[in-house]
Amino acid sequence: MAQVYERVALIGLGLIASSIFWASKRRDLAGEIVGYARSAETRETAREIGLCDVVYDDINEAVRDADLVILCVPVGVMGQVMEQIAGSLKQGATVTDVGSVKRDVIDNVTPHLPKGVEFIAGHPLAGTEHSGPRSGFAELFDNRWCLLVPIEGSDPDAIARLRGFWEGLGSNVEEMDADHHDLVLAVTSHAPHLIAYTMVGVADDLRRVTDGEVIKYSAGGFRDFTRIAASDPTMWRDVFLSNKDATLEILGRFTEELFALQRAIRQGDGDHLFDYFTRTREVRRSIIEAGQDTDEPDFGRGSGGTKS
Amino acid sequence: MAQVYERVALIGLGLIASSIFWASKRRDLAGEIVGYARSAETRETAREIGLCDVVYDDINEAVRDADLVILCVPVGVMGQVMEQIAGSLKQGATVTDVGSVKRDVIDNVTPHLPKGVEFIAGHPLAGTEHSGPRSGFAELFDNRWCLLVPIEGSDPDAIARLRGFWEGLGSNVEEMDADHHDLVLAVTSHAPHLIAYTMVGVADDLRRVTDGEVIKYSAGGFRDFTRIAASDPTMWRDVFLSNKDATLEILGRFTEELFALQRAIRQGDGDHLFDYFTRTREVRRSIIEAGQDTDEPDFGRGSGGTKS
Repeated sequence: MAQVYERVALIGLGLIASSIFWASKRRDLAGEIVGYARSAETRETAREIGLCDVVYDDINEAVRDADLVILCVPVGVMGQVMEQIAGSLKQGATVTDVGSVKRDVIDNVTPHLPKGVEFIAGHPLAGTEHSGPRSGFAELFDNRWCLLVPIEGSDPDAIARLRGFWEGLGSNVEEMDADHHDLVLAVTSHAPHLIAYTMVGVADDLRRVTDGEVIKYSAGGFRDFTRIAASDPTMWRDVFLSNKDATLEILGRFTEELFALQRAIRQGDGDHLFDYFTRTREVRRSIIEAGQDTDEPDFGRGSGGTKS
Repeated sequence: MAQVYERVALIGLGLIASSIFWASKRRDLAGEIVGYARSAETRETAREIGLCDVVYDDINEAVRDADLVILCVPVGVMGQVMEQIAGSLKQGATVTDVGSVKRDVIDNVTPHLPKGVEFIAGHPLAGTEHSGPRSGFAELFDNRWCLLVPIEGSDPDAIARLRGFWEGLGSNVEEMDADHHDLVLAVTSHAPHLIAYTMVGVADDLRRVTDGEVIKYSAGGFRDFTRIAASDPTMWRDVFLSNKDATLEILGRFTEELFALQRAIRQGDGDHLFDYFTRTREVRRSIIEAGQDTDEPDFGRGSGGTKS
């Protein structure tokens, strides 16, 4: 594969940035990939494990001469970071991001965008529950979607080039409108995360009552919630605050449905429950048909319970 | 391993019963394992795949002479099935079950219990999202917990023998009180399942708005919910109806917490969110330390997105 950019700068060196680095190197997508992280400890770790060709202590040094700058920081600070680097960006450069919310990021980033620099928002739908510079790996984006959200007047050539880069990283790329993105993600990711966080918090409160048994016997569904609820707290705080409207809208619908099911339980309305659960089973079938998961039975990973 | 029972009868031939059969055969835990299912189609499938040494068309024939009878039917019909078989049970036999709720099952089964027959309730904490006679496999119980809930006056020898049988199937066995069992399971399994069902139903409603994109981009958390929400509708209807009080109690707490988090989002209270998410991360750590899951990153199974 031909190199897509001469010089790429990664701002923020967590799970996504480190995976971009390893995936780029795997296919030689860029001449040089440099990086910057706010925390000295993260920069130190990055140097130690060979993450980035050069790690800079100064964010403006890092972006200077870069053809592509990828903002891999929590969505709550995207605007601030853009303001900070604006003066050092090269003419003709493209800036993109990897945040889970798009309207808010675009609104905060574009006011600081210098003339002659493109901003094309992006969101790779990939991740694990781990975070930090050591958590990345080259295969993270393979066969995962990456959604690009061009802003009005984005240069088609710049979009095509960024698309080629993400395809080189392994992704399937689609373009989408910012508001639509935020609604779809509220359903598929943001609301489920908040719900998982909530349930895990409830269980934590009950630990005293149940004397650790909630942990011991977690295999029946709850364990999957704890995995979802183990994701990076800063990232998720920012996601909820910056996709407030769509998240609250979906949570409102969720609460309505939950109340209806609670009432059915209280009233012993088995038909309502059965019909509902039959319908949700169909959704699972669609997801398997869409290739988003396998039909392989999941009965927990690892060795399971400890010997008593 | 020495055979634990001469003759075992499986009533209901779904995921759990078929896994018990294959796991017993693996270690030769019983002289003969016979079975019965209400549906002729299930009995036909069982005969076709060699599930059970004999499959009976008559439930009373199936339990006659059995030393252990395992009720593997939905919790809503346990009492009915017990009533049906009561007259055919052998003196000295043990009856057990595999239902996810224990108080209700004990209350419904014990009135029909003949003199000279033991009932020891049980619940293997194991399963997948699949159901039916073809879904079982010998390893399902390996290193999983099996909770036994003896009733007042249960014979210690009968309990010890049943424990030996479940250990032979691969489980780690613990004894527990019925009400405590139902509370712990409401937290670790019943409430999470209802929540997952609810979220998947909401997403299904939104499919028209989002034109199938909810399915296409399901990898970000929602996919795990659909797996949980694909479990057997009859089984889960019965679980919620028969563990009504504990489930509603936990859902009440859940709703309270969810409202507090929604308010934090609406008010932009990032500290509240951050603290909450940091605390839930700790719960995940406890589960990994308890050996109930591995720390291996999960980024979706299978091939992921289809090529566009």
